[in-house]
Amino acid sequence: MMRTHYCGQLNETLADQEITLCGWVHRRRDHGGVIFLDIRDREGLAQVVFDPDREDTFALADRVRSEFVVKVRGKVRPRPAGAVNPNMASGAIEVLGYELEVLNQAETPPFPLDEYSDVGEETRLRYRFIDLRRPEMAAKLKLRSRITSSIRRYLDDNGFLDVETPILTRATPEGARDYLVPSRTHPGNFFALPQSPQLFKQLLMVAGFDRYYQIAKCFRDEDLRADRQPEFTQIDIETSFLDEQDIMGLTEGMIRGLFKEVLDVDLGDFPHMTFEEAQRRYGSDKPDLRNPLELVDVADQLTEVDFKVFSGPAKDPKGRVAALRVPSGAAMPRKQIDEYTKFVGIYGAKGLAYIKVNERAKGVEGLQSPIVKFIPEDNLNVILDRVGAVDGDIVFFGADQARIVSEALGALRIRLGHDLNLLTCEWAPLWVVDFPMFEENDDGSLSALHHPFTAPKCSPEELQANPGAALSRAYDMVLNGTELGGGSIRIHRREMQQVVFDILGISAEEQQEKFGFLLDALKYGAPPHGGLAFGLDRLVMLVTGAQSIREVIAFPKTQSAACVMTQAPGVVDAKALRELSIRLREQPKVE
Amino acid sequence: MMRTHYCGQLNETLADQEITLCGWVHRRRDHGGVIFLDIRDREGLAQVVFDPDREDTFALADRVRSEFVVKVRGKVRPRPAGAVNPNMASGAIEVLGYELEVLNQAETPPFPLDEYSDVGEETRLRYRFIDLRRPEMAAKLKLRSRITSSIRRYLDDNGFLDVETPILTRATPEGARDYLVPSRTHPGNFFALPQSPQLFKQLLMVAGFDRYYQIAKCFRDEDLRADRQPEFTQIDIETSFLDEQDIMGLTEGMIRGLFKEVLDVDLGDFPHMTFEEAQRRYGSDKPDLRNPLELVDVADQLTEVDFKVFSGPAKDPKGRVAALRVPSGAAMPRKQIDEYTKFVGIYGAKGLAYIKVNERAKGVEGLQSPIVKFIPEDNLNVILDRVGAVDGDIVFFGADQARIVSEALGALRIRLGHDLNLLTCEWAPLWVVDFPMFEENDDGSLSALHHPFTAPKCSPEELQANPGAALSRAYDMVLNGTELGGGSIRIHRREMQQVVFDILGISAEEQQEKFGFLLDALKYGAPPHGGLAFGLDRLVMLVTGAQSIREVIAFPKTQSAACVMTQAPGVVDAKALRELSIRLREQPKVE
Repeated sequence: MMRTHYCGQLNETLADQEITLCGWVHRRRDHGGVIFLDIRDREGLAQVVFDPDREDTFALADRVRSEFVVKVRGKVRPRPAGAVNPNMASGAIEVLGYELEVLNQAETPPFPLDEYSDVGEETRLRYRFIDLRRPEMAAKLKLRSRITSSIRRYLDDNGFLDVETPILTRATPEGARDYLVPSRTHPGNFFALPQSPQLFKQLLMVAGFDRYYQIAKCFRDEDLRADRQPEFTQIDIETSFLDEQDIMGLTEGMIRGLFKEVLDVDLGDFPHMTFEEAQRRYGSDKPDLRNPLELVDVADQLTEVDFKVFSGPAKDPKGRVAALRVPSGAAMPRKQIDEYTKFVGIYGAKGLAYIKVNERAKGVEGLQSPIVKFIPEDNLNVILDRVGAVDGDIVFFGADQARIVSEALGALRIRLGHDLNLLTCEWAPLWVVDFPMFEENDDGSLSALHHPFTAPKCSPEELQANPGAALSRAYDMVLNGTELGGGSIRIHRREMQQVVFDILGISAEEQQEKFGFLLDALKYGAPPHGGLAFGLDRLVMLVTGAQSIREVIAFPKTQSAACVMTQAPGVVDAKALRELSIRLREQPKVE
Repeated sequence: MMRTHYCGQLNETLADQEITLCGWVHRRRDHGGVIFLDIRDREGLAQVVFDPDREDTFALADRVRSEFVVKVRGKVRPRPAGAVNPNMASGAIEVLGYELEVLNQAETPPFPLDEYSDVGEETRLRYRFIDLRRPEMAAKLKLRSRITSSIRRYLDDNGFLDVETPILTRATPEGARDYLVPSRTHPGNFFALPQSPQLFKQLLMVAGFDRYYQIAKCFRDEDLRADRQPEFTQIDIETSFLDEQDIMGLTEGMIRGLFKEVLDVDLGDFPHMTFEEAQRRYGSDKPDLRNPLELVDVADQLTEVDFKVFSGPAKDPKGRVAALRVPSGAAMPRKQIDEYTKFVGIYGAKGLAYIKVNERAKGVEGLQSPIVKFIPEDNLNVILDRVGAVDGDIVFFGADQARIVSEALGALRIRLGHDLNLLTCEWAPLWVVDFPMFEENDDGSLSALHHPFTAPKCSPEELQANPGAALSRAYDMVLNGTELGGGSIRIHRREMQQVVFDILGISAEEQQEKFGFLLDALKYGAPPHGGLAFGLDRLVMLVTGAQSIREVIAFPKTQSAACVMTQAPGVVDAKALRELSIRLREQPKVE
């Protein structure tokens, strides 16, 4: 092996030892007649000193430039007292260089590695092989590798089998658009890249594999929002003969173990919260519990007020009126309130009523608000007591359809938490449970809230009688307001699966055509089973504190789903298209 | 958790203990007034006895059928002396059933699990979720999971980082046909699914990751030979600052450790053999060293004989004349020899000359052969001495272009080894090294024998001067005549890469267009690097003794690259095609 040590491994215990390093010239300085090279490798930096005694080596050290690839032989020695660098793993020592070999030269890189902040992301992605040299980028991908390794070990130790499922498969009904792959051997037919291995993992349970996992690539051809990628990675888990408590316990243990191992953080036991409570108190199905603000329902106090904006939703069974108290928020300037009003507008709220609580002892006089005049003082007092308002607070109000109020105040709650630095802890995990089976579409039809294979908490007859009220056996793991993973107990009986398909308006013919193999599988002895999938990219992002999902993927795509480094996607020759029995609808644009 | 134990875990130490099992009814028998259910789960079988004392349970046990999913509570007890089944992990005990619950019913499966041998593979693939219940199928996929887990642990422990590379990428030049994915956001452009992560892993080395691995899905849209799949899995490895000896040592350690761990087999140190020697002695670049037969060159004895079939190739620098001695083969009937003659014809051989050595002491008289009359006795004796022929042997001859002789006699050697049961050991690993850089095409142009990123053993100048003679720094790991993995030290200097591209006839423009990002990467400080890729499916096949690659893949495709279970590929609606800016060349056939 060329090297004896990684740069970052050098320390005082190696003093006087001869070592060999291989790496990149991170920095080069002349100082006091000697040359200093900071050599960089995966594990860190080491300072090598070349003095003029060794003439040839010194001359070569004088000629090397940033990012040259070098091999250095030398002797470790303690740095002089004043020169110790506590910010560097090897900062207590330096290497006196005996021999220097240039393994490869380098042109000046397109951007410097230490002042990258001004470099546009497109340039960094184009030269990703240079961008990944930056220690903070490399650290994220190293941590990603440690995370997957920790997760695999946990699952291996708990009897899970790692089974690969196909990438060339059939369109699955996750709802997003599939990436399609034309088949050469079956002209006019297409494979789809999987949006998840959902049905395959259920079939593995039917096959008796009992505990399955896979760190699986999944694909969605959707317009990319800030934090989406066309291909993403899922920690995919399925088990048989376990109920939701067992599965939550097992996977909670996995995440708790991971945080302990890589961050030395103890997440403790995760609280469980129903979907209904999460919506009611936090206006979200993935509440960030680091944030102490809560929504409080006040409709009962406002049904009779002479102010339709409140009384309308208060009386409507599908309406909601909720308050959000912000401690010490009364000093908030008008301009700020206007900005929040605009912000909740994004979520459909038509306004943002508020009460500034200046001095409660003074009654209505002590309140500053455009709306108090509409509300009888008794009701006002009940409301203020209920939200726990004290002098100096501001209380915001939302009144509209329940969905709009929850979304708008839920988003405002998050925004206020960040704007006002209200977060009370670093990590706040929880389980959200008892989701509804279905959500209503605008046309009154029903969609599955999770996916159509999720088991309900009731019998097929009860489900059929009142699908809108049915709860599912689904569970989501939420951390700091991000959904880390979600899963459910699945339907394992054919009749129940058909009832759900019927409710979703899938015709018997379509059921057979799209899901015939699943219905078959449920017919031949399917065990009770359920599982979960974690978004690995998101998990790594949280653990590493990355700002974007692109920072934790080695070679990510841009917002337009392209790779600027390899120039993918690219043009394909006519022969290839002919072999696939397809033609272009329009000529590709010449770039 | 529903169960307390897996069926296969039950044994005498649990006698008198109450346990709960969950699984499938594997077999059901009435005998002597009691009912026996063999319950099956992932870990094995357990026999449960129901006696009529517990009326309701007995009645239910009487109604269950094969493949019903059940939960059984009962007490473990030793079997009566005569009833112990040594072929069953839990064969020394049985369970006296107290309670029985049917978790799911099952229709009679489309084929019985214990008499599957007559079932066509298409039916088995269509009902893969049932086929995988067969203990021998499940065992192979369980072993596959153990193998990947063992390999990951070895690589983790040796400082390798697991990094994911893209599946939606640009066509790479592995030479096979790519699977293409139309891009919706870049009309007329296509992604390709990777044939290997080759260039990405090289870029990770340029980025300084030092040691990378990935168990990676790869794709080839080729016509499927018996043992190919459109998607396959590769153990992909790349390292920096290591030479070929280091890399071979590391990966040999991995495979040796794996065999020790999962099969308790010590593979010992792998011998190294040059490509030239492998071709000369075994007519193959992946010789099966379990087979003792060897090719022996005899052209020098035949240049002057009056038999053009021999003298022609013997005098041709591109020809070869070789002999293959089969000990005790003289008794081989004429019919068998005719069959072997036909067999070598597949490889282009125009005939198969032979000498049966009946009694060497008698000279030419003691030889039975259509060709001895053409060969002077002195030369004949040198040849027979050289191959070590003794009485009772048969010696086959091949004479033609070197490639044809090596392929034909190499294949005959393998066939004879199996037909005559000559294999001398169970496992024979080796490294093949010193491959040529290029092979000549029929039109005289050159192709890369490995891939165009493989480093030569010589300087760019020497390479340019005589590319045909250059050796590469490539290495293949071979086990029992199967190539398990192959790799090389890569080119890390831009100039050398350009020389290789030039030799391959890739124009400067094409170099820039297809490999611009690689050439860029080599310009900005690429370290010396190299790696290897193992075919995981093939490795699992060898370790499990499977007959086909389809047995070690959970959901394989058929020979026509289709999934008969999910009916993939499938028809896609017109809207989806429109969004992808493509149309069909012809209408899909209605099935």
